[in-house]
Order: sequence, then C-alpha cells, then structure tokens
Amino acid sequence: MTMIKKLSKNAGKITGLGAVLALAFSAPAHAEVSAETGYILNTFSFLVNGALVMWMAAGFAMLESGLVRSKNTATICLKNIALYSIAGLMFYLVGYGLMYTDVSGYIGSLAGAFYNPSDAELALLGAEEATAEQVAAVVGNGYSVASDWFFQMVFVATAASIVSGTLAERIKLWPFLIFTIVLTGIIYPIQGSWTWGGGWLSEMGFSDFAGSSIVHSVGGWAALVGAIILGSRRGKYGKDGSIHPMPGANLPLATLGTFILWLGWFGFNGGSVLALDSAANATWMAIVFTNTNLAAAAGVVVAMILTQLIYKKIDLTMSLNGAIGGLVAITAGPDLTNHFLSIIVGGIGGVLVVVSVPVLDKLKIDDVVGAIPAHLVCGIWGTLAVGIFGAGDIGTQIIGILAIGAFAAGTSTILWLALKFTVGIRVHEEDEMLGLDKVELGMEAYPEFGSGSQTI
Amino acid sequence: MTMIKKLSKNAGKITGLGAVLALAFSAPAHAEVSAETGYILNTFSFLVNGALVMWMAAGFAMLESGLVRSKNTATICLKNIALYSIAGLMFYLVGYGLMYTDVSGYIGSLAGAFYNPSDAELALLGAEEATAEQVAAVVGNGYSVASDWFFQMVFVATAASIVSGTLAERIKLWPFLIFTIVLTGIIYPIQGSWTWGGGWLSEMGFSDFAGSSIVHSVGGWAALVGAIILGSRRGKYGKDGSIHPMPGANLPLATLGTFILWLGWFGFNGGSVLALDSAANATWMAIVFTNTNLAAAAGVVVAMILTQLIYKKIDLTMSLNGAIGGLVAITAGPDLTNHFLSIIVGGIGGVLVVVSVPVLDKLKIDDVVGAIPAHLVCGIWGTLAVGIFGAGDIGTQIIGILAIGAFAAGTSTILWLALKFTVGIRVHEEDEMLGLDKVELGMEAYPEFGSGSQTI
Amino acid sequence: MTMIKKLSKNAGKITGLGAVLALAFSAPAHAEVSAETGYILNTFSFLVNGALVMWMAAGFAMLESGLVRSKNTATICLKNIALYSIAGLMFYLVGYGLMYTDVSGYIGSLAGAFYNPSDAELALLGAEEATAEQVAAVVGNGYSVASDWFFQMVFVATAASIVSGTLAERIKLWPFLIFTIVLTGIIYPIQGSWTWGGGWLSEMGFSDFAGSSIVHSVGGWAALVGAIILGSRRGKYGKDGSIHPMPGANLPLATLGTFILWLGWFGFNGGSVLALDSAANATWMAIVFTNTNLAAAAGVVVAMILTQLIYKKIDLTMSLNGAIGGLVAITAGPDLTNHFLSIIVGGIGGVLVVVSVPVLDKLKIDDVVGAIPAHLVCGIWGTLAVGIFGAGDIGTQIIGILAIGAFAAGTSTILWLALKFTVGIRVHEEDEMLGLDKVELGMEAYPEFGSGSQTI
Repeated sequence: MTMIKKLSKNAGKITGLGAVLALAFSAPAHAEVSAETGYILNTFSFLVNGALVMWMAAGFAMLESGLVRSKNTATICLKNIALYSIAGLMFYLVGYGLMYTDVSGYIGSLAGAFYNPSDAELALLGAEEATAEQVAAVVGNGYSVASDWFFQMVFVATAASIVSGTLAERIKLWPFLIFTIVLTGIIYPIQGSWTWGGGWLSEMGFSDFAGSSIVHSVGGWAALVGAIILGSRRGKYGKDGSIHPMPGANLPLATLGTFILWLGWFGFNGGSVLALDSAANATWMAIVFTNTNLAAAAGVVVAMILTQLIYKKIDLTMSLNGAIGGLVAITAGPDLTNHFLSIIVGGIGGVLVVVSVPVLDKLKIDDVVGAIPAHLVCGIWGTLAVGIFGAGDIGTQIIGILAIGAFAAGTSTILWLALKFTVGIRVHEEDEMLGLDKVELGMEAYPEFGSGSQTI
Repeated sequence: MTMIKKLSKNAGKITGLGAVLALAFSAPAHAEVSAETGYILNTFSFLVNGALVMWMAAGFAMLESGLVRSKNTATICLKNIALYSIAGLMFYLVGYGLMYTDVSGYIGSLAGAFYNPSDAELALLGAEEATAEQVAAVVGNGYSVASDWFFQMVFVATAASIVSGTLAERIKLWPFLIFTIVLTGIIYPIQGSWTWGGGWLSEMGFSDFAGSSIVHSVGGWAALVGAIILGSRRGKYGKDGSIHPMPGANLPLATLGTFILWLGWFGFNGGSVLALDSAANATWMAIVFTNTNLAAAAGVVVAMILTQLIYKKIDLTMSLNGAIGGLVAITAGPDLTNHFLSIIVGGIGGVLVVVSVPVLDKLKIDDVVGAIPAHLVCGIWGTLAVGIFGAGDIGTQIIGILAIGAFAAGTSTILWLALKFTVGIRVHEEDEMLGLDKVELGMEAYPEFGSGSQTI
Repeated sequence: MTMIKKLSKNAGKITGLGAVLALAFSAPAHAEVSAETGYILNTFSFLVNGALVMWMAAGFAMLESGLVRSKNTATICLKNIALYSIAGLMFYLVGYGLMYTDVSGYIGSLAGAFYNPSDAELALLGAEEATAEQVAAVVGNGYSVASDWFFQMVFVATAASIVSGTLAERIKLWPFLIFTIVLTGIIYPIQGSWTWGGGWLSEMGFSDFAGSSIVHSVGGWAALVGAIILGSRRGKYGKDGSIHPMPGANLPLATLGTFILWLGWFGFNGGSVLALDSAANATWMAIVFTNTNLAAAAGVVVAMILTQLIYKKIDLTMSLNGAIGGLVAITAGPDLTNHFLSIIVGGIGGVLVVVSVPVLDKLKIDDVVGAIPAHLVCGIWGTLAVGIFGAGDIGTQIIGILAIGAFAAGTSTILWLALKFTVGIRVHEEDEMLGLDKVELGMEAYPEFGSGSQTI
C-alpha cells in the first residue's frame, strides 16, 4: 500500500513563505510551466476553489433552514448570511494578520490587518508598461495575495457556520453575532496560526490538510460548549429521560444544503493543495477531488445501512449527516494515494455520526442539526486518520487535536459565559415557544403555510 | 491611499478590439505566458465566470420566488426561466450585433447578428493538422469569440431579471415577455454599445467596470417606470396613506437566492477583468473577488444595524437586499486597490437600500422585491463611487448615469405605454386576487400547502 | 453552412489512449503550450467541469422533490443522495474498469476496478525532487488519471438520476437501490465501453459527444421499462380513460432543479471536449457552452409557445422539461459551428417533450417527472441530429441508438422482473396512500405544512 503525502502542504499554506515556493518554481518539475503561467494558475485555483467554499455558506444556510422548525427559520437564515458577512469583515480587519503575519509560534500580528495588495503588485498594476523585474517581483510570491486572502477567508466562515446550527431555536440573535465576531476575528485565527500560519504545531509536524481540526473541530468545540452552557430547547428532554423529536420543517432544503456542501467541499479540499503550477500539483488536486467524493459517498451508504439495521428504517437526516461526516473525516488527509482508504475513512465517519447522535441525546446536549457528530467527532477522527493511514505521526496528531480542542473549547467557554452573565444568551421561555422569527425579526419564514400551532 | 485603475478595462470589453489586446500580448509583462496559453486562459475565464453569472438567473428566480406570495410563485418561476431563455436567444439573434459590431458611437450593427465562429476559428477547427499560422490567426484575437459571446449574454439576462421582481404579482405574463424581448434585444444592447461597445461614453472616459449602470441601473430604470405605469398591487397602499405589508411566502428561498447572487457576482465582477493571460490580470481578478466579497458583507452588516436601530428588529429581507445593494455598488469599480474602500462603497449601498425602501412606499411605487433600491439606487451610487474613490471623473460619471438613465427610462416608458394601450399589461382585479398562478398558468406552486385564503 | 466535427472527440474519451493525445501534443497547434501546462489545463478542466456535473445530482434531487407530492418528498431526497453515492462507489469498485480498461470491443475488464493513481504518478508525487523524466512520464498521459475518473464518474450518476424521478411515489426503496447498483456498476459501463471505451460502436463511427444516448437514453430506457413493469400510481389513470393530475408539491424547487441542471450541463457538454490544452480545444469548449445554452433556451421558448397554443395556458412544468429536452437534444452534438442549428436541435427537443407527455399518458405509462420525454425521446432525437446536422452518419447513429436501447432496455427488464418476483418492487396499496415518507423513512418532508389529507 503506497501512501505519499505532499510534504510541502502545510508549509505551503503559509502566506508569503517565499522560500518554499521559490524552491518549487526552480525545481525541474516546473521546467515546462513558466513562473508567470504558474502564478496565474495558482491564483485562479484559489479563486475558483474559494468560490466553491463560499458556496458552502449557502449549504449551511439551507441545511439549517431545513432542520429547524418553521418558527425559527427566518432567524437561522439571517444568522447564516450575517455570520458569513461578519467572518469576511473580521478576517480582513483582524484575523488574517493574527493567522498569517509574522507568526511568533503562537500568534500572528496585527501588521497583517487591513491587508492590501503587496507593494510589488501595486507597482505592476500601476505600470503603464510593466518591466520584467516588476513581473518577476510579483510572480515570485507564487500567487496573488488577494487570492490567498479570499481562499483563507472562506474557511473562517465555514467554522462559524457550524456553530449556528447546533445552537438554533433558542439562542439570542445579537449575542450569537458577538460570539461570531470573536470566533472569526480572534479564536479561529490564533489556533490557525499554530499550523497553517507556520506556528508551533506546524513545526511539530502536525498535519491537517484542509482543516478537519483547524476548521471543523474548532467550530464543533464552540458549538459543543455553547450547547452545554445554553441548555437544551424547552421540551426536548423530558424529566423521565424521554426524548422528544423536533423534526425539521423542510427536508428538501436540508438535502439541497447537503449537496451544496458536497460540491463546495471539492474546493475546500481540492483548493487546499494550494497550487496548480505543476503536473504534480494538478495530479494532487485530482486525487483530492476523488477521495473527497468517495469518502462522502461512503459516509452516506454506511449511515443508510446502519440506520436501517438499528432503526429498521433509513433515516434521511442521518444519511445527509453521513455525507458531511465522511467529508469532514477526509478533510485532514484527502491526499491518500490509495483511494480505497478514503472509503474507509469516510465510512467510519458515517458510523461515528450515527452512533454519536444518541450519545449526545443521552447527555442531554441538544444539537439541533447534528453538527457536533459531523464536525467535531468526525473532525477528530479525520485528524487521527492521518496518523493511521497517512503520513502523519499519531502522537503529534493527538497533541494537535488536544491543543486545538483545549484552546477552542476554553476560549469559547469563557466567551459564552461572559455573554451569558452580561447580555444573556437565551431567549425567554415564552419567546422560545412563539419562535425566534416573531420575536427577533418580527416576521415569519412561511407566513402562508403551517398552522403555527405546533409550538411545543 | 493608492488607487490604480486598470486602464484598458473598458476598452477590453470591446469585442475584437485586436489592437488593445495585441499590445498586451506583446508587452514584456507577458513574456512568460505564450500567446496560445493566454488565449486558453482568457477563454476559460470567460466560460467559468460566465457560468457563475448564468447561475445568477437561478438566484433571481429563488429570490423572487421567496418574496412573492404563494399564489404568484409559479408565475414568477416561469417568468425567470423564460426571460433567461429569451435573453439568450435575442442576444444571439440581434443584441450582440447591436452592442459590439461596428459600433458607430451610438449603436452597433446587425452584421453581428446570428453570430458564428470567426473564419480563422473555423479554419483552425477544420484543419486535420493545424499550421502555426492558423493557430496564430485565432490566438491573435485574445480569446475565443464564443466565450466572449457567452460571457456578454449572461449579462443581458441579469438586466432582464431585475424587472420581473419589481413588477411581480400583477403584470400579465405575455406583455412582460414582450417587454423582455425588446429590452434584451434592443434597449440593453444599444446603451451597452455606448460604453462596452466602444461608443461615445467610452470615448468620454465613462467607467463602469462590470455594469452598475449598464446592467443594474438599466434593469432598475425599466422596473421603475414599469412600476409607475403598472400601478401598485391592489390593497398595498390604503387611501389613508397606510401601507399593507404583503410578506413573501418563502424566506429560505429568498435567502438561497441571495447566496446564489453573491456567488454568481464573483463571476460577474471577476470575469469583467476580461483576461487571465498575465500576472497582472490574475492579480486584478483576485482583487476584484476580494472587493466584491467585502462590499457585500458590508452591505449586510450595515443593513442589519440600521434596521435594528430604526425598527428595533433586524429585517431579514432588508439584510438580503443589503448584500445585493453592496454588490451592485461595487460593480462599477471593484478594482480598488485599497480594499477598505470597498467596505465603504458596499456599506453605503446597504444604507441606500434601507433608506430607499420607505421612500418608494411613500411615493406609492410598489416594488415587490426591493429591486429598485438595490439595483437602481445602488447602481447609480456605485457609478458615482468610481468618480470619488476610483480613477473615474465624477462629471463624466454623472453624464453617463444621466444618459443611460434617460435612454433606459425613456424607451421603457414608451414600450410600457405601448403595451398598456394595446394588449394591456395589468391582470384583472379578480385575477389578481385569485393569483397569477391560477389565472395565467392554471396551476399552483404549492398545491398542498397554505390555505389559499390569504388572498388580499 | 459550415459544419465541422471535432474528429478526435470520441477517441479522446478513451482513457489512456496515449497515441491520440500524444499526437495532439506534438502537433504544431500546441507548439506554444508546453506539455506540462497542457496537462494542468486538461486536468483542471476535468475537475471544474466535473464539479458542475456533480451539481446536476442536486438538480435532479430538487426537480424531483418539487414534482412529487409532499408525502413522498423525503424519500425522493434520500434516493437522490443515495444513488449519487452508490454510483460513485460502484464506478470505483467495478464500473470504471468495465467501461475503460482493456475494452475488448463489447466490455472492459475488472483490471481497472479499485482504480488508483498510475505508477508514473506515484513516482512523481513521491519524489523529493522530480526528474524531467518523471514529469514527462506523467504528462504524456495528457491528464491526471484521477481527474478523468472523477469526470466519468459524475456521468454515471446522471444516468441513475433519471430513473428515480419516473418511478417515484410507488417504488420500494431498497429494490430501487439494488437496481441502481447494477445500473451504475454494470449496465451503464458495459454499453459505455462500446463508444467511449473505444469498443465496437466507436469503431463503427457512432458519434455521441457527451451522451444523449450513452447517458440520457440509457437512463430513459431503464426508467421506461421500469415504469411499465412497476405500473402507474394508484388513481393516476381511471378505468374510463381519464387522467388524474397529481401536481408536484413545490414548483419553485422544480424550477431551481432545472436551473441547476442547466448550469451543470455546461460542464457535462463543455467538459466532454476532454481537453483544454490548445487554442482549438478552448475554442471548442466555448462553442459547446454557447450551443448548450441556445438549445436549452430554444427548448423553453418552444415548450412555452406550444403549451400556450395547445392548452391556452403556458405550462411551467412543461417549460422546465423543455429546457431539459433541449439540453439532452444538443448533448450528442454540441459542437455545431453554426450556432443557429443548435436552436433548431433544442427547439425540436422542446416540441418532443410537449407531444410525448400525452402519448405516455395515453399508454398509461406513469412518468412522475416527465423524464422519459426529456431524456429518452430527446436523447434519441439528439443522437439522430448528429447524423442530420453534424458529422455523424445517420445509419450508424441509428444502429447505435438501437443497440444501446436494446441492451439498456433488455438488461433493465430482466433486472426489474427479477426484483419484482423476488423482493418485490412495489409498495403496498395502503402504503402508497400513506406516502412513502411515513412508510419507508418514518418521517415527513414538511411536517408542519399541508393537511396530509390529500393522499389520493
């Protein structure tokens, strides 16, 4: 069984690490692709793949819209477009700097805040007739600075998207948005700097290709501690240990959301090759696309079979989450050169989704859309899998999982508690019954449909 | 504050303007990208970005489907797929020629109608073994003719999409389609020729990178005069000055539509760099993607904050339109090299959306989906912004705004009035109560949901 | 009228047919694009276009979700994500080998099962510093193996998607999934090997650019014989010859699905150029995009006009199917260099959709979503059209249509009958009344909407 990791992967994600890319450009493998052509292809790859990742924001919006009850649907729509917007602004104002600029090992600097094109780029763009030196100065960076910013920004938004689903139907709107500001501006970028910013985890050899831990488990940890601090929805868990299902109002939208996420994930994982300037990198990208699809497919099929065996009926929602679990699981190491292994990795993701959901219910942790099983549990599994099937060291992978988890869960806990004891994070009981749409927005998602009487 | 405009931008949008591109190809900046590689990249950029813009047709369809009442939903779906189809056919049969072929200053010619591949392309494609001369003859154009046609065609469709939303719920189907035929075949292409076709506005230095005025305000003007001539929906405005909200039936669809538009806008603005054959152009495209995202995000956040302050609740629909307003605003000048300025431009777009909606209501102009604030008002603002923050001259920008507005509003007025006094444009009062779906299509969008009794 | 076919098209779809591509790479037309740059572009084209085709799975899911009744909606969602997953796994485990590896004329071999990167790719990817020989060994293949696998895989899924819609609302879930396993793992790949695998039809000169017959008619035949064997929905056809319409529950979703399919089709047809490594191939891709759009647009407009004339009202569902019919029709020959012909081809597709629907009803063949008219009838028409307008020979085209049809219909019939007389394929009468969602999944798609009493 041959397994080959792209060695420069993590290093490559470091902005401006000219050394690594310069080396690549001078290597014989690139002899036939000019530096400028490579620059164009790298940049275009970031833009196209980044646009696919942006599209995942719509996927989360639809998945969550479909899985909440109709009285909370407009609010979840608002949260999703708001968090994507906030993530983009905060990453511009603060996060990109903290994650990628002058990383000291544990944190970057605000020198990268209010990021703009590089001086070399400005010189090239402003020239009436560019000189070869001006071109070379830009091309030497390997890709346009803005394309990298764009690609990294959409990853922050994904982390934030995970939180909204878990905490839906009972969290106050503005406190949630404040949490999002801090998560996307500070929490995510700091831990991100440890690996993709070239910090201490990267130096230890921690490997997380596209972010099973860095993106998905971080969102999952924030969601988990949030769910514990916020408490379950009123009526979800009976005092006698009973569990009252609160079915989502619109399953075709949830299905659409899953398909959107699946499509976007090709950009998420494929774009994380970070380059398209050589036959090797193009081959890597194709391998990543293939593994991503196989892992998701395995997650679906395994979840279908398991729910059929356990519950005697296939569960649609669980099958959709099986796809997401498979996708999250393969995200840390989608560069397996034995494709069959990606079926294993994704299939185990499907298993973990199915078995984690009842465990959370047993613990009375109320996760409205199943984001904790899919993103946190499968995120941990995927990161471990790199140590098992990929080139990662299992001990280092565990250290990374624990460090990122401790930081994300710890800072999130502090923040949720601070919000709870100041502005409050939970809507009033009667407001929860009425639904957040009427209370927070004064509107209904489907004013002409439904009885409005199903408010438990 | 450094601001650099891509000087050749407007010129570049002129089909077959070999001179400009030939210059680019021979410039030192391109020394490392062969002419044929550049041709491939330019063509592929048009196709990929054009596909994203095509996707905006689905975005408008979903946005409008979500914001009309259920009794008019199937009809708005039909209008959207019909107008996209009509736009594509009319631009092939007539529009492309009027906009880009032998533009005399004020109008092109029908020589470009029934457009087909160039003779050079046919020679290359038909050759068993192509000669270097045959390749050079094709490559000299910079990009494939069909890729340019495809990219320009999807822009026409966008202009037409704007009209359908404003006039929903009371306009007759076929008269609307007739208007669409003339708008996409004649009105849009003629004014488009003035700038992108190399006509008089282009020669004056009017600058509209991706069409804040040329696409969005033109659709907005057609919608505005249409709304005035058509009148408001029955019951919308009381005689006592009261305003009766008619909430959209499906807000998750409206949210989805907004996300689709946002995604598609990367192609709309990014593809309008019109080339991907050099490090400079790839860098421009990345800058445009980044600014586009920041402006939209700012539009959302500003609309959220403003509606919270004014109405004490965040308004979801207004926030969605805030995104669109921000996007329209940045469309005339998404090439700002100080990214922070795009936050300003987009944020002001959000303000304009929020303040324009009640003004229209005050004037009893009934815009079902808020397209006039988002596309017309923000389109004007975006065009002005190029004169303030970008390289455009404010006086020239105002001339362009006025000329395009006068032409679009004038011709649309004539056309709407001609339709009104011949076939009629407004459905009967009782049909409006019943809903257009039953009357025009004989079907219901959601036959199993809703009471059907909410027909005001 | 100039019509030029891309001669190497069918040959190009043969995996690893090094000879054809090697020739291309050495031709003068490629002198300016290095082999490695061409490899990158070919690979990236497969990935981007393949992602668009993957997106069609979401399109079918939404189209069918919109056109079934609400009591069967969750089940159709599940079927769609399940079949996409199964198709991907089966094509990896079996199908790719049967279709493309060592094709004997009538079938490939299992040597290509459990496909993995080539040895040359592994050597390149594993090298610390790649040698020029290692690069050349990979680049000589023209594209990354995984990118081709990915692109071909999404086509299988499309064929499977067609079946689910026709048979909705009364077929048992697991038997349908078993059929899908055989269709995607065996039936599709075997007949696919005849043309795209370089088998006997290819050698005869049969021409099916992107699969009007190979993909769409195969799905259509499987659906047709399935519909006949399965029987119509209870209550659909009265004993007196009356036809009871069973309107779809959510027409905006059906509209969205159609737009998704339209977008995805650019990848379906455009990616089937199979290369992006020369000015000629880029030009072909642009021509294909343009023709694809024109044919779909013509299908819509023709269906609108015809339904207006015949039924005195435009039919939304028929117009949506007009788009699909136009798209299927152009799929066999989207490389027409006279674009006007694609309007003819697509427009006739629209006619065929409108006239076929009542014929099926007359025959009491119950096709829930209209997939047989759109995919089978228009698939046959499109394949014939290549013999009329394109470079194909009409006699050979007919042989291909008949051979593929006989094989697909024959094997499907055997399989459906085998399933019928073993596990059974039809749900119980009372289950059909209750709806498949409650019976098969134990959940509802829209638990808060609708009366649930409309179960005929």
